[in-house]
Amino acid sequence: MKTKVVIIGGVAAGPKITAKLLRTKDFDCEINLYTEEDMISYSACGLPYFVEGLIENPQRLIVRRPEQFEEQGAHIHLNKRCIKILPEEHIVLIQDTLTGIVEEVQYDKLALATGARPVLPPIKNLHLKNIFTVRKVQDGINIRNKMRSSDTKKAVIVGGGYIGIEMLEAFYLNNIETHMIEMNDYILPIFDSEISEMIKAEILRMSEGKVKITTSDAVIAFEGEECVKRIITAKGQIIETDMVVIASGVTPNTEIARAAGIELGVSNAIRVNNRMQTNIKDIYAAGDCTENFHLVSKNYAWIPLGSTANKEGRCAAINISGKYDAFPGVLGSAVTRYDGFTMSLTGLTETEAKKFGFDTISSTMTKKDKAGYMPSAENITIKLVADKRSKKILGAQAIGCGDADKRINTVASAIQSDQTVDEFLHLDMTYAPPFSTAVDPLLSAALLINNQIYS
Amino acid sequence: MKTKVVIIGGVAAGPKITAKLLRTKDFDCEINLYTEEDMISYSACGLPYFVEGLIENPQRLIVRRPEQFEEQGAHIHLNKRCIKILPEEHIVLIQDTLTGIVEEVQYDKLALATGARPVLPPIKNLHLKNIFTVRKVQDGINIRNKMRSSDTKKAVIVGGGYIGIEMLEAFYLNNIETHMIEMNDYILPIFDSEISEMIKAEILRMSEGKVKITTSDAVIAFEGEECVKRIITAKGQIIETDMVVIASGVTPNTEIARAAGIELGVSNAIRVNNRMQTNIKDIYAAGDCTENFHLVSKNYAWIPLGSTANKEGRCAAINISGKYDAFPGVLGSAVTRYDGFTMSLTGLTETEAKKFGFDTISSTMTKKDKAGYMPSAENITIKLVADKRSKKILGAQAIGCGDADKRINTVASAIQSDQTVDEFLHLDMTYAPPFSTAVDPLLSAALLINNQIYS
Repeated sequence: MKTKVVIIGGVAAGPKITAKLLRTKDFDCEINLYTEEDMISYSACGLPYFVEGLIENPQRLIVRRPEQFEEQGAHIHLNKRCIKILPEEHIVLIQDTLTGIVEEVQYDKLALATGARPVLPPIKNLHLKNIFTVRKVQDGINIRNKMRSSDTKKAVIVGGGYIGIEMLEAFYLNNIETHMIEMNDYILPIFDSEISEMIKAEILRMSEGKVKITTSDAVIAFEGEECVKRIITAKGQIIETDMVVIASGVTPNTEIARAAGIELGVSNAIRVNNRMQTNIKDIYAAGDCTENFHLVSKNYAWIPLGSTANKEGRCAAINISGKYDAFPGVLGSAVTRYDGFTMSLTGLTETEAKKFGFDTISSTMTKKDKAGYMPSAENITIKLVADKRSKKILGAQAIGCGDADKRINTVASAIQSDQTVDEFLHLDMTYAPPFSTAVDPLLSAALLINNQIYS
Repeated sequence: MKTKVVIIGGVAAGPKITAKLLRTKDFDCEINLYTEEDMISYSACGLPYFVEGLIENPQRLIVRRPEQFEEQGAHIHLNKRCIKILPEEHIVLIQDTLTGIVEEVQYDKLALATGARPVLPPIKNLHLKNIFTVRKVQDGINIRNKMRSSDTKKAVIVGGGYIGIEMLEAFYLNNIETHMIEMNDYILPIFDSEISEMIKAEILRMSEGKVKITTSDAVIAFEGEECVKRIITAKGQIIETDMVVIASGVTPNTEIARAAGIELGVSNAIRVNNRMQTNIKDIYAAGDCTENFHLVSKNYAWIPLGSTANKEGRCAAINISGKYDAFPGVLGSAVTRYDGFTMSLTGLTETEAKKFGFDTISSTMTKKDKAGYMPSAENITIKLVADKRSKKILGAQAIGCGDADKRINTVASAIQSDQTVDEFLHLDMTYAPPFSTAVDPLLSAALLINNQIYS
C-alpha cells in the first residue's frame, strides 16, 4: 500500500522533499503538496535581483513548475492553505483560498515546510499604498513596477539586514535616492559591530551621497493620503518618500503547528531532531519554519536560509521514506553584497562567542585578495575568531570588493571539522597571482592569532 | 652569543626565513643570506602576467628589497653562489659570481632554499637566440621584449603545464599566433585525463583558431641561423616560429646538498622532516628544493609551489630559533587560468588515487556557479574523488569560467580534516544568488557520490 505523504508549503523545502521522494527507490508513496500560493518552487532570494533588473522575466525565478512534479506523479495543489492539523487522526484540514471550501486530507507522513513571513513592525498607517514587503514573486513585481514608474524618485527601506541591503543595491543601481532606517545601532547586526561599521562606511563611500543610512532610530509612522508620502521616526526625522520597503525581519509560519501541539523552540520555530522529526509522531518539518542546531554554540538558533532548507528537505525526505539520514546542524554561513562589495560570515561572531561563554581571541586584517601587483587585486578584510583555550576556530567574517565569500566557505569547512588555528594555518590553499596571495589572507589572519597566542 | 644563521637562496623560502627570524623575539642571531641572483624576494609566479602586460614595471614583482632586510639587521649578499657545504666544519664556501673569489662562511644553523630551475629537454640547437625559459625576472623582461618586437608574429611553447598555459595566455592576449607542444598525451597532465581533454577543448574554443595545441609529440630540434626560425618534432611536424618558450618542467637545485651528504628524495629534492630538518645536524631546507609529504597519499612527492615555500620557510625559521613547529604536509592544491577559464585542483586525482591503491569512487558534474538566472552565472565542472571504503574525500578538480578555485580550497580544508563525503555534503556553505546556487556545485558533486554509494 502506498504511503500517503502530505507536504505543506511550496517554496524551497517542500519542493525539495517532493523531488527527493520522487527519486527515492523502493518507497511507494502518494505525494500531495499543498501551498496557499499560486506557484511553487521559486527563488525568493532572487527577488532583489529581479527588482534591480538583472533578471527581466520573473518566470526565471521559478525552479520547478507544478506540471513537472505532476508528470512524475506528485500532486501539487495551489491556493490551498492548511488551517489545522489533527495529529491523532492523521488528518489535515485544507482550505481552498479562492472558494473557502475546507477538505479533510488523510496522511501517513506529514511534512511541514510552511516557511516564514515578513514581520510588520508597529508603525502607524501600514495600510497606505506603496508600502511593500519582500517575500513572494508578486511582491517583487509590485516593487519593481512602482520603482520604475516615472514619479518614483525616493525610497525608504525599513531594516538594515540582508534583504534591506539587497534592496538598497537594487534601488541605488536604479538611481532611486534611498534612505535606510535601522533600529539597531548597526546595520547587518549579525556581524561584529566594528565590521558592521566598516560595511556602513563602505556602502556610503561607494554610493557617493545617493544613499543615506540612519541607525539607532525607528520608523513610528507613515504619512500620506492614499499613498505613503513621508515617514516619521522616533527621533523626529521626517523623510519624504515615494515608496517604502519593509525588511525588518521575518517570523516562522508555525501557528498551525503550535495549535496541533507541536513543540516550538527559538523564535517560535518548530523544534526538530536531526532527522527532521517534530515531537509528534509522523510529523516532520524542514526549511525556514524550523529551528536549527548551531554547530559551534551547541545551542538552538533560528537561521532561516535557502541553503539550509534544501539540506533539511533532503534529510526529511530520506527519513520519511524509512531510511536514515541525520542533519548535523548549521554554522549560519551567509553572504550578501552591495554593488560588488561582498559581506560574508560563518560560525559565531566574537560578540556571540563571548555570549556563549567562550574566551575568545581574534584577529582582523585587511589585505589584497590577489597578488598586489595584479590590476584586479582588491582589499578584503577578514576577522577570524577562535577559542583561546582549545584554539578551535569559532567563526569568520569577510568583507570587501575582493573575493570574500568563498574564503568563508573554506573556514566553514574547517569549523565543521573542529580545526584549531594551528591546523588551519597549515591549510594547503591554491595560489596563483590572479587568485590569491602566496600567503592567503585567511592564513594571514590565522597566523596573526597564532602570533598572539605564542608571543 | 649570536647564533650565526646562513641562508642560501633568495626568492621565496629564503626571504621568508629571514623575515620570520627578524620577527622572532628571544633569539639573538646574525642572519646572512646569499643568493647567486642580483635581486631577492620576487614573485616568479607573476612573470607570465608581466609578460602579458598586466604589470608594466618589473619592479612590481619584487616583494622585499635587500635594503629593507638590511635595515632590520639581516645581511643580504647578492651575486654570491654557494659552491660547497662542509657540514663537519659548519662552513659553506661562497663564490662571488662577478669576481670568482671564494670565501669561507661559518654557520651555526644553515638553511637551504636553493629553489629549482627549468629543465632543458634534449633538443638540438638549444643555443639559438630567442629560446627562453621562465624563472627569473630577467627572463620575463627578455621574453616580453621579444614578444613585443614588431617582427614577432608566432611563438612556440614547449610544455603544457602551468607555466606553459600561463605563457599561452600571455601570448594569445598579445595577438601572437602560438603553438603549444606537449610530450604527454594531455596538457596539464596533473589533472585526470578527461578533465585535461575538457581543458584543451575549452582553450581551443576560446582562442578561436589563434592557438594550436599538439599533444603526444616532442620537439627534437630547433632550426635557424642565429635565431630560432622553426622547430622540428619527433612526428615530423615543422613549425615556423619567431620565438620559443621552454616550460617543460623544473628540477630542484640540490647538487651542493647531495655533495654534502644531505639525503635527497623524490625527484632529487631534499628530504626533510616535518621541522624542515635534513638528515644532517643544523642544516634545514625549505621551498622548491625540498620534497613534500603528501597528506592524502601519505607518500613523499615533489610539488614545488610558492604557497608551500612560504609555509616551509616559516616552519624552518621557528625551528632554527629553537622553538618547535611542525609542517604537516601538502595536498598539492594549485590553480591556473587561461583568459578567464580557471583550472584548479587539490588532493589526488582519480588516476593518482588508484595508483596509491585506493578503491575510488568519483562524480563529475557541470553546473552554474551562481543562481542560473543571474547574468554572471558561468558553468563550472567539478570532479570529486573519494575512497569507496572509508568514504573519505581524496581530491577534487574544478574547471570553468565560473568561480572554481575557491571551491577547491573548501575541499582542501575538508581533506585536511579527513572529512567523509557524508560529512562534506552537510557543509554549511554561504548562499546568495550572485555567489552560488542554493545547493552549491561542490555539494551536488558530493551528493552524486553519496547517491552512488547508497543506491
